[in-house]
Amino acid sequence: MTVQTPLSEFRFDRDSEDTGIDAGFIAVEIQRLMGEGQSQAVREFIESQELADVAAIIEELPENDDLEVMRLLSLHDQAELLGYLRPSSQVAIATCIRRRDLVALMSAMSHDERADLYKQLDAEAQEAILPAFAKAEREDLRRLAAYEEWTVGSVMTSDYATLAPDLTSTQAIEALRSQAIEAETIYYAYIIDAERRLLGVVSLRDLLTARPRQRVSEIMDTEPVWVRADAEQEEAAKLVARYDLLALPVLDNNDRLVGIVTADDAMDVTEEEVTEDFYKGSIVQPIEMSVAEATIATLYKARIFWLVLLVFGNIFSGAGIAYFEDTIAAHLALLFFLPLLIASGGNAGTQSATLMVRALATGDVRPADFGKLLSREAVVALTLGVTMAVAVSTIGVWRGGPEIAWVVALAMISIVLMGALIGMCLPFIFAKFNRDPAAASGPLVTSIADVLGVLIYFTIATQLLGL
Amino acid sequence: MTVQTPLSEFRFDRDSEDTGIDAGFIAVEIQRLMGEGQSQAVREFIESQELADVAAIIEELPENDDLEVMRLLSLHDQAELLGYLRPSSQVAIATCIRRRDLVALMSAMSHDERADLYKQLDAEAQEAILPAFAKAEREDLRRLAAYEEWTVGSVMTSDYATLAPDLTSTQAIEALRSQAIEAETIYYAYIIDAERRLLGVVSLRDLLTARPRQRVSEIMDTEPVWVRADAEQEEAAKLVARYDLLALPVLDNNDRLVGIVTADDAMDVTEEEVTEDFYKGSIVQPIEMSVAEATIATLYKARIFWLVLLVFGNIFSGAGIAYFEDTIAAHLALLFFLPLLIASGGNAGTQSATLMVRALATGDVRPADFGKLLSREAVVALTLGVTMAVAVSTIGVWRGGPEIAWVVALAMISIVLMGALIGMCLPFIFAKFNRDPAAASGPLVTSIADVLGVLIYFTIATQLLGL
Repeated sequence: MTVQTPLSEFRFDRDSEDTGIDAGFIAVEIQRLMGEGQSQAVREFIESQELADVAAIIEELPENDDLEVMRLLSLHDQAELLGYLRPSSQVAIATCIRRRDLVALMSAMSHDERADLYKQLDAEAQEAILPAFAKAEREDLRRLAAYEEWTVGSVMTSDYATLAPDLTSTQAIEALRSQAIEAETIYYAYIIDAERRLLGVVSLRDLLTARPRQRVSEIMDTEPVWVRADAEQEEAAKLVARYDLLALPVLDNNDRLVGIVTADDAMDVTEEEVTEDFYKGSIVQPIEMSVAEATIATLYKARIFWLVLLVFGNIFSGAGIAYFEDTIAAHLALLFFLPLLIASGGNAGTQSATLMVRALATGDVRPADFGKLLSREAVVALTLGVTMAVAVSTIGVWRGGPEIAWVVALAMISIVLMGALIGMCLPFIFAKFNRDPAAASGPLVTSIADVLGVLIYFTIATQLLGL
Repeated sequence: MTVQTPLSEFRFDRDSEDTGIDAGFIAVEIQRLMGEGQSQAVREFIESQELADVAAIIEELPENDDLEVMRLLSLHDQAELLGYLRPSSQVAIATCIRRRDLVALMSAMSHDERADLYKQLDAEAQEAILPAFAKAEREDLRRLAAYEEWTVGSVMTSDYATLAPDLTSTQAIEALRSQAIEAETIYYAYIIDAERRLLGVVSLRDLLTARPRQRVSEIMDTEPVWVRADAEQEEAAKLVARYDLLALPVLDNNDRLVGIVTADDAMDVTEEEVTEDFYKGSIVQPIEMSVAEATIATLYKARIFWLVLLVFGNIFSGAGIAYFEDTIAAHLALLFFLPLLIASGGNAGTQSATLMVRALATGDVRPADFGKLLSREAVVALTLGVTMAVAVSTIGVWRGGPEIAWVVALAMISIVLMGALIGMCLPFIFAKFNRDPAAASGPLVTSIADVLGVLIYFTIATQLLGL
């Protein structure tokens, strides 16, 4: 039983974690109203909502219905809405509507989102629509779409505001007013020469607080922070965060201004990078699509590699155990402590690696700090090892007598120390060879610590128990 | 041998990962110049740099020198610079300078950063400076400092721009011009009534493109996105990202406007949350400070809890092995496969958990999708298990004959299936009981899979080998 709420009284519950439930609920209601021909009520409702929320509703609607609802909005709102939809939904809509409508819609989109959509279309669809664009737009589209996925160029937009250096602040504000409909942001304006080389940046705030007859060239920042179009997109996101920018100018290799990266796009890049890092430190290979949409084959492929690789690591541990079969046969009580000792080495190592990977990523720790950190880590690991040895040796006395307790205690200290030092060193070694330290965490550390743990444990046992 | 570069020719290398090296290098140079009394050269250099970079240099300077260099800047720049410094450096500087200077400096700071610094000071210092502020600032400081660390209130600022609803767009722009020095942003302005209740929001862009005599009340968005001051700060960050906002208004429980959260502060919150999530999915307890600055005791405390907890998990595995001592004694070849089988269960489980935790966090997957995903996971796990069983059973034939090979193959399929299903279910169970699914990843899954893996392996062995 669902409560019937007229759409006009509905408010998105923004406090809840899951606005998806709201969207699905409203989508059903909208479908009903559209079926009853009450498109005017639907129009009023969606016009009163934020476009990001309307996009969430559109995603929940069946094909054709989504298009019908979308068309209730103005062309400008439709274009902005499209940018909020998932890439797959964008393509689905783009392939449904007439070519002329698609070109009109794409012309109204912001330049970066338009290029992203264009890249998603298949070659046939691309060739079909390209001639319908005006020449300048066609070239812009081709140029933006040409940047590789991981570059700054692929996230920048070319609809930025520009000013001539000799304008007065009053004239400049007037010029920005006329660019306000087209430009992605007018809060920063870029001052370029005839070759589009960047001379400076001025904020609308600075223009407003300047004296009316002061010239742009006197107010502008002549050494703004910028980034290259072929740099990694993460670079742009870092600069935006470090310098608290609303937009970052992008230059090509001839120092010409080719675009800007806005703060909201930089934020999206950061979120993508976080997901990528998340997978990098895990034993799953990155999946390009949503997990919910992934096929069985995709999931299999993302997982089998690491599973098989780690099995090989464990074969060495197994071989280590097999090598000490005589010791084990003589003292089966040793087996009780095997999982616990081996796991402790891996756990201590994972901890050190976790701390170092994060600290290297945030810049808290630099590769040069290695020596200083290593001796501190040794002390911490020794203290941890001794604590664990004391706890475990009491169980050792109970399960196997004082001799076994000694073996277990000594093994625990050595194994924790060994694990921690490996976990600490590997990220630095990776960083040294320009690899991502995140790849050195968890599984690799555990595999190495496992093998060495087996060897340390049974070597100590063989020596102390005199076999 | 270092190359001597005059400061004036120095450029921060923003392409490099590590601007810290630059900062340290420049700091040495600046110290030398200050020692030679060339403070004018230093002033020219730091005035030409971004304040975020100057802050990095100041951090590298010894005490007293940092203050001397900072004082070369204007009061306004000093105040902004202070906000870029680490909290500990801010406090160090605040306790060095005279009370009157500190109050002047803090009065020029943005309201949120001022409150953050105030909170860092000890009670004595707080009481010493508070009376020196003007009444309005004193109250603002007290109010902002009162919000708890995790709330929206603790990251919002109170220096936002406001407008009366009956102003024309031209008058409104004029009003914003006069607020430009004080307000954190003038790109959004907030329209409030006499009780400070939020009536609407208008962007400077909308004001600029409006007709000159159009009134603010006609242009403003009357249903802006907002957030409560006592909501979690993560909530504000999510709204800023979802709706691509430059600033988000914050209301108290009486719907009065009390502050705004700017996009750059929202970005900082996101980064904090990422670090927190990173630790949550790991076996290290969160460390409040930089890892490089943490003491041995802090590191010990952050690590010992999980290490000991996981040892207890492994005692169960050990007990499981001890329970099957007879089987093992009769077939020591089984030990070779022990590490490999147990680890595979934990690895498959960690993979499922990784995928689900991330998908639940990004909203890719909803708790309601559980049933659909479970059957797919079972198929994937079965395929993975069979692949691994085939690979491992060939080694089984070689190490222990066809009987052992059968045991190992069957155990592998069961263990991988068991591990994967546990890894898939735990995050959903955590989500169901409103716990963070991230806490259900890695260590917990591995511990459970380890114990069950031992039991499954030796039970199958005991049955098939007829003991």
